[in-house]
Amino acid sequence: MTATVIDGKAISARMMAEIRAEAGELEAAGWAPRLVSISVGDVAAAELYVRNQQKQAEAAGVAFEARNYPSDISLEQLTGVLAGLNADPRVNGIIIQRPLPAHIPVKALQKAVHPIKDVEGMHPSSIGNIVYNDLTLGPCTAVAAVEILKSLPLKMEGLDVCVIGHSEIVGKPIAFLMMGLGATVTVCHHMTRQVAVHSRAADAVFVAVGKPGLVTGNMLKPGAALIDIGINRVEGRTVGDADYASCAEVAGWITPVPGGVGPVTVAVLMRNAVLATRMQKDHYRAAFAAAV
Amino acid sequence: MTATVIDGKAISARMMAEIRAEAGELEAAGWAPRLVSISVGDVAAAELYVRNQQKQAEAAGVAFEARNYPSDISLEQLTGVLAGLNADPRVNGIIIQRPLPAHIPVKALQKAVHPIKDVEGMHPSSIGNIVYNDLTLGPCTAVAAVEILKSLPLKMEGLDVCVIGHSEIVGKPIAFLMMGLGATVTVCHHMTRQVAVHSRAADAVFVAVGKPGLVTGNMLKPGAALIDIGINRVEGRTVGDADYASCAEVAGWITPVPGGVGPVTVAVLMRNAVLATRMQKDHYRAAFAAAV
Repeated sequence: MTATVIDGKAISARMMAEIRAEAGELEAAGWAPRLVSISVGDVAAAELYVRNQQKQAEAAGVAFEARNYPSDISLEQLTGVLAGLNADPRVNGIIIQRPLPAHIPVKALQKAVHPIKDVEGMHPSSIGNIVYNDLTLGPCTAVAAVEILKSLPLKMEGLDVCVIGHSEIVGKPIAFLMMGLGATVTVCHHMTRQVAVHSRAADAVFVAVGKPGLVTGNMLKPGAALIDIGINRVEGRTVGDADYASCAEVAGWITPVPGGVGPVTVAVLMRNAVLATRMQKDHYRAAFAAAV
Repeated sequence: MTATVIDGKAISARMMAEIRAEAGELEAAGWAPRLVSISVGDVAAAELYVRNQQKQAEAAGVAFEARNYPSDISLEQLTGVLAGLNADPRVNGIIIQRPLPAHIPVKALQKAVHPIKDVEGMHPSSIGNIVYNDLTLGPCTAVAAVEILKSLPLKMEGLDVCVIGHSEIVGKPIAFLMMGLGATVTVCHHMTRQVAVHSRAADAVFVAVGKPGLVTGNMLKPGAALIDIGINRVEGRTVGDADYASCAEVAGWITPVPGGVGPVTVAVLMRNAVLATRMQKDHYRAAFAAAV
């Protein structure tokens, strides 16, 4: 068997067309979506990433302002900046770019973003809402990986799914999202005795660990879907967590790296921006109607 | 094999002794823990439950005030009551008794309780914090079930765990809590093709579905731990979700119903009350120190 290669760019393009239409509607209603990106200190590591977000935001009809603060800014000053953005009705979404300097704990910043402007879906309350199956703003990479699986001709209810990697922002949210769709989910990680026992029994495998070559073809059930979320640099090339050649021989569908989950993740970020703007519009209108 | 019967009352008693000591320390510091229980309308269904909580609170040295509101109270009035309790420093925890009248959506009330007073661990932000492995106030039944498993001589890291039932307040939180302890977790539910495939491979099985006799001995691996969270009334008797006789022959450990998870759940509620009080004390002191 040779796997069908999943075209992340095509899925992203379909999503972006819908997002652009919605952003246009919001703009016509006086609520043009607007994101603010916060980076701190030397931005070289994140620059390519931010520039790509900016380009995609333009394509989606979402305004994008990249702010950079000096590396000696204090946590108090930064949370003050966030409080200002939370209160500003012209700002609909806030992105915290990583890496941050050591004295700025990323979780403290994520919690300081109001959940209604949390377009990255990182606030504990956003994560909790996913558990409650109230999908509002979900963590972008996890949502993107699930969107890709949903694009395949597989019935999600009862699907046996194996998630390799149990990070808070990717592995665990994928698990809840898939549970919400009716799948039977097993989450494996570095303490799992034999990952292959679980992955070989699964109809779909998600891998998000950050180890090139971790998943090999003999760890898959023939015909399974493999969604590779890893991004690793090996000898100057970008590769995922799967040993692509052997997996493509066994899997039914496989995502390439790059060109798989990556492009869809940016589209989800833009969809979250539009969704957040709509939520804020409804929230402000309800508050206004109540006041009259 | 005949399973060792897990004594929930003994585990509860050990926990209650620790909680009482901590409650005493807090009282000596001027922060005697205090819970307010809110029930609405006819309380017959919840009365036994509330009375039991009250008794356990007394035993733990936690003050307990049971409030009942008329069944025609509006959601706005109730959220107003909760806002008052959130702001009142003499109240450290709020319990929303179920069932509620149809016009009062339970989730809306749960979200209206401030997360720092959410002793039932039901707020989306409390659930999200569990996912983030920041165990603050967890949902009582799920935490109790995990406490019981932790009392057994099993290594949690790498343990193969099967959770049957994926409710937001029991099954899913058990899954995250066990992931946080390093277990490999599979979550099964009514859409799972063959529960036995998963349960038979597991070293520990949690069941929380509400179907008497759902788990039978032939669904277990010999020597596995079975934590039965179900509470069902069958012919005037209270039984769990396991077919006790056949499971006790195969399992290594088994919780009885009643006398297993139930008593530990009330102890966890009291521990949450003490924990919440401590968090509030620290929060107020930090705010006071900052103001000076």
